[in-house]
Amino acid sequence: MTPARLALFAAITASAVLAAASLPAEDEAADNASPIYGVTVPEGYRQWPVIAPAHETDPLNELRVVVGNPTTVKAYRDGALPFPDGTVLVKLAWKHVQSPEFAPAYIPGAATTVQVMVKDSKRYAATGGWGFGRFVEGKPVDQAQHETCWACHQANVKDHDYVFTRFAP
Amino acid sequence: MTPARLALFAAITASAVLAAASLPAEDEAADNASPIYGVTVPEGYRQWPVIAPAHETDPLNELRVVVGNPTTVKAYRDGALPFPDGTVLVKLAWKHVQSPEFAPAYIPGAATTVQVMVKDSKRYAATGGWGFGRFVEGKPVDQAQHETCWACHQANVKDHDYVFTRFAP
Repeated sequence: MTPARLALFAAITASAVLAAASLPAEDEAADNASPIYGVTVPEGYRQWPVIAPAHETDPLNELRVVVGNPTTVKAYRDGALPFPDGTVLVKLAWKHVQSPEFAPAYIPGAATTVQVMVKDSKRYAATGGWGFGRFVEGKPVDQAQHETCWACHQANVKDHDYVFTRFAP
Repeated sequence: MTPARLALFAAITASAVLAAASLPAEDEAADNASPIYGVTVPEGYRQWPVIAPAHETDPLNELRVVVGNPTTVKAYRDGALPFPDGTVLVKLAWKHVQSPEFAPAYIPGAATTVQVMVKDSKRYAATGGWGFGRFVEGKPVDQAQHETCWACHQANVKDHDYVFTRFAP
């Protein structure tokens, strides 16, 4: 094989390897996207700043924290409504359990869901500009659960661009 | 006045102005430091990642979120105990109020306190390596309140380097 043919062969082989390697990643991405909306859990969200905590009583019985990406934090600080495209809110949730060390306090137990709202006014024009995703252990829950998101946000918080959470000062 | 004398005069005047201007800043820094420990509210903490939320029931009736600086986040992720010098934990607290938009949810009301723990094993050797600060509207509360911090942490969470909060996964 001449050096030129060897290089061509190497390039083709590398392409084939890359193509093969990319298939599982694509399948995985599809598996990890929410039904209806195609929303995924954003990378790095666990490092994002706090928008606000919440406590959800029965039947869910959860402690929650909503965090936001830089676009979201800026929008809250500026009081910008509607939220701009690129806004991403992530709500982390855990069971609300009594502290074994200090009885008046309730602390996070097992993680329950991670819930995501993504603003894209064109892609999600039919749902107020918002795409929704609800995830358990990194995997999206079923379509029936995702059908409940928009109806509840639309009914309750239209005046806050369909977002429940306010910035906690 | 010769140019050289003019420059000297200008330099002396500028120094005097700077010295006068620095006095209020120093007074302010002292005003903003906690009694006993000299702990201040760290800059930029509102952008730090979440360690965990909590719900404190009566009599305080608060929602809380503990955030940490990069040293702290790394220590939690690594499971490092004791926490290294440079660890800074900040607890934000608000009144626990029912959501007007979704009855099962409780959300942050008025901000109450910001509480800070700083690890410096030499400076705070007498209190397990920890300095404490409790602040209301940016100002430290009185010495009597600061005298309660160490006793409670020492009594309840000695096995977790005197820190109540665990990382919420």
